[in-house]
Amino acid sequence: MEDINAIAKQFVDFYYATFSSGRSNLSALYRPNSMLTFEGTPIKGVDAVIEKLVSLPFQKVQHKITTLDAQPSSATMDVASLIVSVTGLLVVDDSENPLNFSQVFQLYPEGRTYYVLNDIFRLNYG
Amino acid sequence: MEDINAIAKQFVDFYYATFSSGRSNLSALYRPNSMLTFEGTPIKGVDAVIEKLVSLPFQKVQHKITTLDAQPSSATMDVASLIVSVTGLLVVDDSENPLNFSQVFQLYPEGRTYYVLNDIFRLNYG
Repeated sequence: MEDINAIAKQFVDFYYATFSSGRSNLSALYRPNSMLTFEGTPIKGVDAVIEKLVSLPFQKVQHKITTLDAQPSSATMDVASLIVSVTGLLVVDDSENPLNFSQVFQLYPEGRTYYVLNDIFRLNYG
Repeated sequence: MEDINAIAKQFVDFYYATFSSGRSNLSALYRPNSMLTFEGTPIKGVDAVIEKLVSLPFQKVQHKITTLDAQPSSATMDVASLIVSVTGLLVVDDSENPLNFSQVFQLYPEGRTYYVLNDIFRLNYG
């Protein structure tokens, strides 16, 4: 489980840093079979996913991670895929009222790296 | 996606109803390779999972679902597995202060039904 957690941490740190610095660069992490469900809207494929992420109406955005959990996601363990579950705070355009969010990724191995096969994002209103 | 969402809804309704009426009966939904990460604690296998769930220190509990999202989780689509992401409110022992929670399941097909391969549960403190 050590490796799984390290991979999850490394991925999430990179993902949210890239989200803040230039969302369009997240295209490197998705593929034509990737799925994003964003606030209930289903989106399929790297191009549509990036179009959606880039269109979000804020300039500055930061994800502050509160919890991070990871598990291997293959029933037969022959594929080193993993599920990563994140909860945290979304700080938008220096707002003083950060929003709770939860996000789930399934990372799928590709050579020595991973791509995002599944991505589900939700804001959590308290 | 219609079928996926219907399966997810049916599963989640059954899961939380069973959780409320008798947690030990959830054993039917887990297998020896099932994983639960409960508030950061990793647990493996149906017996340990049920032991954990039964040991939770409340008598009455109700999950009120706020959001429910589902996606197919197989990269090759040859396995009808799915990821189900839930956010909602946990009402414990008639408390007037429900707690926000988020929970992720991966459901894995087995004959004509599904079992829980992955389960990650977190309370979200606002």
